[in-house]
Amino acid sequence: MNTRIYNAKILTMEEDRAIFEGELWIEGDTITYAGPAKSGGGKEWDEQIDAEGNLVMPGFKNAHTHSAMTFLRSHADDMKLDEWLNTRVFPAEAKLTDRDIYWLTKLAVMEYLTSGITAMFDMYMHRAAGAEAARDTGFRNVFCESINNFGGTIEEVEEDYHTYNQDESRLVSYQLGFHAEYTTSRELMEGIAGLSEKYKAPVYVHCSETRKEVEECRERTGMTPVAYMDSLGLFRHGGGLFHGVHMDDADFDIIKERGLWIVTNPASNLKLASGIAPVKRYLDMGIPVAIGTDGPASNNCLDMFREMFLVTGLQKAVCDDPEAVPAMEVLKMATVNGAHAMGLPECDTLSAGKKADLIMIDLMQPNMQPLQNIEKNIVYSGSKQNVKMTMVGGKILYRGGEFFLDCPAEEIYREANATARRILG
Amino acid sequence: MNTRIYNAKILTMEEDRAIFEGELWIEGDTITYAGPAKSGGGKEWDEQIDAEGNLVMPGFKNAHTHSAMTFLRSHADDMKLDEWLNTRVFPAEAKLTDRDIYWLTKLAVMEYLTSGITAMFDMYMHRAAGAEAARDTGFRNVFCESINNFGGTIEEVEEDYHTYNQDESRLVSYQLGFHAEYTTSRELMEGIAGLSEKYKAPVYVHCSETRKEVEECRERTGMTPVAYMDSLGLFRHGGGLFHGVHMDDADFDIIKERGLWIVTNPASNLKLASGIAPVKRYLDMGIPVAIGTDGPASNNCLDMFREMFLVTGLQKAVCDDPEAVPAMEVLKMATVNGAHAMGLPECDTLSAGKKADLIMIDLMQPNMQPLQNIEKNIVYSGSKQNVKMTMVGGKILYRGGEFFLDCPAEEIYREANATARRILG
Repeated sequence: MNTRIYNAKILTMEEDRAIFEGELWIEGDTITYAGPAKSGGGKEWDEQIDAEGNLVMPGFKNAHTHSAMTFLRSHADDMKLDEWLNTRVFPAEAKLTDRDIYWLTKLAVMEYLTSGITAMFDMYMHRAAGAEAARDTGFRNVFCESINNFGGTIEEVEEDYHTYNQDESRLVSYQLGFHAEYTTSRELMEGIAGLSEKYKAPVYVHCSETRKEVEECRERTGMTPVAYMDSLGLFRHGGGLFHGVHMDDADFDIIKERGLWIVTNPASNLKLASGIAPVKRYLDMGIPVAIGTDGPASNNCLDMFREMFLVTGLQKAVCDDPEAVPAMEVLKMATVNGAHAMGLPECDTLSAGKKADLIMIDLMQPNMQPLQNIEKNIVYSGSKQNVKMTMVGGKILYRGGEFFLDCPAEEIYREANATARRILG
Repeated sequence: MNTRIYNAKILTMEEDRAIFEGELWIEGDTITYAGPAKSGGGKEWDEQIDAEGNLVMPGFKNAHTHSAMTFLRSHADDMKLDEWLNTRVFPAEAKLTDRDIYWLTKLAVMEYLTSGITAMFDMYMHRAAGAEAARDTGFRNVFCESINNFGGTIEEVEEDYHTYNQDESRLVSYQLGFHAEYTTSRELMEGIAGLSEKYKAPVYVHCSETRKEVEECRERTGMTPVAYMDSLGLFRHGGGLFHGVHMDDADFDIIKERGLWIVTNPASNLKLASGIAPVKRYLDMGIPVAIGTDGPASNNCLDMFREMFLVTGLQKAVCDDPEAVPAMEVLKMATVNGAHAMGLPECDTLSAGKKADLIMIDLMQPNMQPLQNIEKNIVYSGSKQNVKMTMVGGKILYRGGEFFLDCPAEEIYREANATARRILG
């Protein structure tokens, strides 16, 4: 399938390349041209799309999520993280089957598509079913290993590392990780550190999400979670920390030195009263930041527009600095940084040779008018309403409010509701 | 025009009335029935709408805005409030004509409709043009007087009070107010207090938005803005405070005693680094709170869904209490409280005799699934994407992504862009 998108405003997100008017060629799953108008270059096109002056840009990368938790949306709100996990989330999750995960992940994929998200860094169990959901819908999925004391062995982790990094669909891949310091034994963490060393692979983990987590780690180990995990050799090959809300001065230095990514999840951190991550300080130190929605049970929606506004809005208020985290920086976090954080360097920008994971933003909506500064419009005013099209790997999966998946939307809703009713009553 | 909406889930927002399935009758601009299925009651209907199981609820009330500031969207971001007002906003506003205001207000109305907002409490100048925009589009507009040292006389205020409270369209009305303590002379404030006394009318004003505003008022008057304005007799007949971010203990008592509304504007307060209003404390004291978007130059979008999530999310984080400001309370603020705050008690709920200002929420979208708790879904997961229909005074103004106004959307965009270019270059 070869597609040409013409009459477009194009924001490639390459360094120092401003929005320009032109066209984009997609051959197979790859971008082959992004530049000024060229009338299709005499090539044969399966489809030619008139963008009507709307904006084409890289899809957003959801750099931390637990997709199949869609079944818990609006089930257990207004609770503290630890109580919420132990009394509501874990008991419900124990009842999930492969089939549940398959449909619940598909529901999340639908929501990602409506928000212009083209890849998920998904930390969840029953991976075979999650991979099938990604392949069947055509969505890009990077698994993040979530081993902890309640499930998983180092042998299984090593097997999954190979299995999902050689997935034939080229849509599914895998990164080493574990759930969190407070749910994972030292032995398991050392096992992960061993695999990281063996494969020179980065490691990703929930870290310093709540004050309580940090305090309890200090009591147990005499160190912060960052320092303790670093002392176990977990970050010798880089990786990333999800949330990263409560850090001390030494933590910042370790993060910087190890070249770790921070994946911030502002809506989830507000809703669970976890706090507000020091994003501006990370940026000021040159620590790269990406953005995740976290799971739909804690957020409760999967909406990159909401996260983008929060990333900058919260920093402005907390740092008493309206200049903190400007719009273009936020767009970079949501696209280029997300791609690199989750190991998808081929999905970062719109340029020849990169994967065709892209979106069209509807500028002919009142929230985008007048057209004074499109980047700022997207970050400060944008919403799901502006997502006119979402394409993953050269295939259009969402366009004009319609989904183009392997099954009807109604079937996914029906299955997700059935699972929620069965498990939650 | 008589319309029947059937096969609906209905959330009337009346006290203690849960969502039920049934139908709604609208005759002229008024609701005549909201209850269980009744097959239209043998009446003649101009249109019968199958809601297909989606939710019908009261429209959101935008209880503080400056609509025509749409021309400044994304023009001057990332600045402090006082610098932003003095160097960017005031000089640009000085160049606005009646014609500009007319089209810029229409642009804001379009955006309100996409967000399910059915009324605006609009504080802006060139009122004749703003009223015309409301009448022509069919949108409900309550003007808030904004007199200050840079424009307006008490005589003009009194004239506008009569003119707009007797508007034949029944869509336009008017409340006394002034811009802010820091922009308005004591003489003018006393004039407003006199009118308030004469007409037993409430008074609305920007108040305690920034720390600087409070400090400078203390230096000038020895009192906080709340105490100083109260000492001038401005709140003898109630009214409301926009923003209300920085309050001392005595302020809370005055607000409570005078029965004032607080209209919170969380996105604007974040973006301008003004702070986070003590919404939970207001609620705990029984002080009623409504929600506004503020103007599009400071927010930058006019989206009640974003405001609703922020109202609760910010309080949870700041108060370290995930139970703070539950979803149903937020929905009440955005509908019933907004209506009463701006003097529209006939627009608060869906019940017989009330105005037909209502919206249909699309539940068949991934962010609303599964359907476990619809109220929570709206507050925590909702977005403009879910607004299937917006009706004001019995007329459908927005439906299925299309606008039904007196002119095409493109004309409004063209005029708004022309104004922005002319004034801002």
